[in-house]
Amino acid sequence: MARSLSLLGATGSIGKSTLDLIRHNRADWRVEALTANCSAAELASLAREFEAKIAVVGDEACLPELREALAGTSIEAAGGETALCEAAARPVDVTVAAIVGCAGLAPTMAAVQAGGTVALANKEALVSAGGILKQAVRKAGATLLPTDSEHNAIFQCLQGGEISEVRRILLTASGGPFRTFTAEALQSVTREQALKHPNWSMGAKSTIDSATLMNKGLEYIEAHHLFPVGLENIEIVVHPQSIVHSMVEYRDRSVLAQLGPSDMRVPIASCLAYPERMKTPLEPLDLTKVGTLTFEAPDEARFPATRICREAIEQGGGAPAILNAANEVAVAAFLDDSIQFLHITRLVEETLDQVEAPTPRSLEDVLAIDAEARAKAQELLTIPQ
Amino acid sequence: MARSLSLLGATGSIGKSTLDLIRHNRADWRVEALTANCSAAELASLAREFEAKIAVVGDEACLPELREALAGTSIEAAGGETALCEAAARPVDVTVAAIVGCAGLAPTMAAVQAGGTVALANKEALVSAGGILKQAVRKAGATLLPTDSEHNAIFQCLQGGEISEVRRILLTASGGPFRTFTAEALQSVTREQALKHPNWSMGAKSTIDSATLMNKGLEYIEAHHLFPVGLENIEIVVHPQSIVHSMVEYRDRSVLAQLGPSDMRVPIASCLAYPERMKTPLEPLDLTKVGTLTFEAPDEARFPATRICREAIEQGGGAPAILNAANEVAVAAFLDDSIQFLHITRLVEETLDQVEAPTPRSLEDVLAIDAEARAKAQELLTIPQ
Repeated sequence: MARSLSLLGATGSIGKSTLDLIRHNRADWRVEALTANCSAAELASLAREFEAKIAVVGDEACLPELREALAGTSIEAAGGETALCEAAARPVDVTVAAIVGCAGLAPTMAAVQAGGTVALANKEALVSAGGILKQAVRKAGATLLPTDSEHNAIFQCLQGGEISEVRRILLTASGGPFRTFTAEALQSVTREQALKHPNWSMGAKSTIDSATLMNKGLEYIEAHHLFPVGLENIEIVVHPQSIVHSMVEYRDRSVLAQLGPSDMRVPIASCLAYPERMKTPLEPLDLTKVGTLTFEAPDEARFPATRICREAIEQGGGAPAILNAANEVAVAAFLDDSIQFLHITRLVEETLDQVEAPTPRSLEDVLAIDAEARAKAQELLTIPQ
Repeated sequence: MARSLSLLGATGSIGKSTLDLIRHNRADWRVEALTANCSAAELASLAREFEAKIAVVGDEACLPELREALAGTSIEAAGGETALCEAAARPVDVTVAAIVGCAGLAPTMAAVQAGGTVALANKEALVSAGGILKQAVRKAGATLLPTDSEHNAIFQCLQGGEISEVRRILLTASGGPFRTFTAEALQSVTREQALKHPNWSMGAKSTIDSATLMNKGLEYIEAHHLFPVGLENIEIVVHPQSIVHSMVEYRDRSVLAQLGPSDMRVPIASCLAYPERMKTPLEPLDLTKVGTLTFEAPDEARFPATRICREAIEQGGGAPAILNAANEVAVAAFLDDSIQFLHITRLVEETLDQVEAPTPRSLEDVLAIDAEARAKAQELLTIPQ
């Protein structure tokens, strides 16, 4: 029988990869909801192709265009944040939660509360609202599957044992495009340089996060929420080829690793088919062609983001939400050419220094902390660095 | 509650590694039977240390020495092949079957027929009598756990999915000490050179097999029996660092790999504690210290053993048993300085050409084929190469 799917963030990078997999296994899936922020024409075209029941734009201003593009079909059109959450709450077998940034929080939570399987590609949900999200998962009896290639790798490696038997989680990091740059050279890297990720094709925000290693810091926080082995047992290993997507070391010293092509369709497929495995249209990994895999320790002197993230999660309270908000502002400012590369992490740290917030108890708390941190980060932006 | 263990081949390399693990987890284990071929003094000392119920020497001539060494204890002493099989048949939770060569066949079969969990470190049981052994496993409802580092790795990686979802098994090979030797240089390698394995510390037979890559060929046959994915879906990948112990590729292109220190205690621990995981006294793998892992395709022109093994399993019938017997003779002759390195595989191939045998239906059939092949290989040895 076909399984039902909702895809929050259909026109983004993860959304496109997900739909490509569905396209290759069309008969196995029935698409319920597809959402986008505003790309109405593209969303309508996807909704038609996949015969979705409903298409939703987060930005209500784009709804007229969506309606027009869906005219003559039986596909429902809706717009605005409430509509987004209502669509996310429709009962389906699998929801792929792939809205980037804090905007994905409420719809992700709505999907979790519906109690199905949620493939989580939205980092911020766990980083900013980890405790709240996990509580909602427990309460609704939902299944949370990590879609990030690293967390998905860890999840797969954990099939080989119990979490209580894990000694260490080894989170691999490509090291980004500036891995071999000196501290001096890092001062003058450009937006264009930062946008060229060596291995993965991702959205701009994730690509910059990957260059600062903030990506890895956020993943470290996510891993802490997903896999309760203790912060001190999660280690970051730099692995420039991005072939080993992460590893789990058990107490008997066996290390299980998940490897694969650097293509998000692999972890997404793992989530879509879980606990089974589906065929993907990808070329298999050829290790004899790759030839060499290397591993090195991270350098937090040049790339402080992972240290900042570790300190934020150790500090607890609202710190991770503040960190995430400040980073979103900082990355946008860097993409705007308003600040330099090294100022991204500096702005995050300064915002963390200047905003204080208790542990959020609700999504509203998180959003309030987020707003406060954003405002402070914006304010700090206007101060000459 | 303590689990019971019998160890067939207690004084060999696998036996020592097993007992070291038991030593570090003493309270969790009760030792039933320990066996050796003849090392009576050593066996007696181990039987005393681990408070075994019975100690058995395969060579009955060594029984008086064993009796004497165990005088004053309540440990039973026995000798000869029948006693070996009787000891192996005692009901225990786990039997480690670690007798090297064809001598291990009957006791391994006896342990399987007792219906418990058998950790199989004896290659020949599967190579020469794969069909018979698997039938016995099914009939007795026994659990067969592979102890070879490669097969154990594959077994661990298969926890991440179903065998029907596997696309390929990637069996890694160190390539042996002569991996980079030219065909000419291979002609004159010495016994001393061949006995120096780059990564693993093993017995002499296994070390020579590793130098010819016959080890990998035998493992290929074993993998074929253990993991029914089809011969064409088992590939050998040369990985000189022996850190990745083998891999499984699923149809979604996820590759799971098991890594670890090059120490047999890791796969043995995995078998002893299965389906749980026990602590081992090993240093953890430090990939940043290892630094680099490389992978290359095997070269069957210089190292024909894997081709010979593939052809033997394709040919079927008694061919794998003939191959194994001829190889034991050839390796002994090489260790004796009777033949040169390249003659090992040549002798195996010639024996396969000259002996014909139908599919063995019983252990007796296997032993008859084994004897015939040994005789032919010995005869071929006397012909000047």
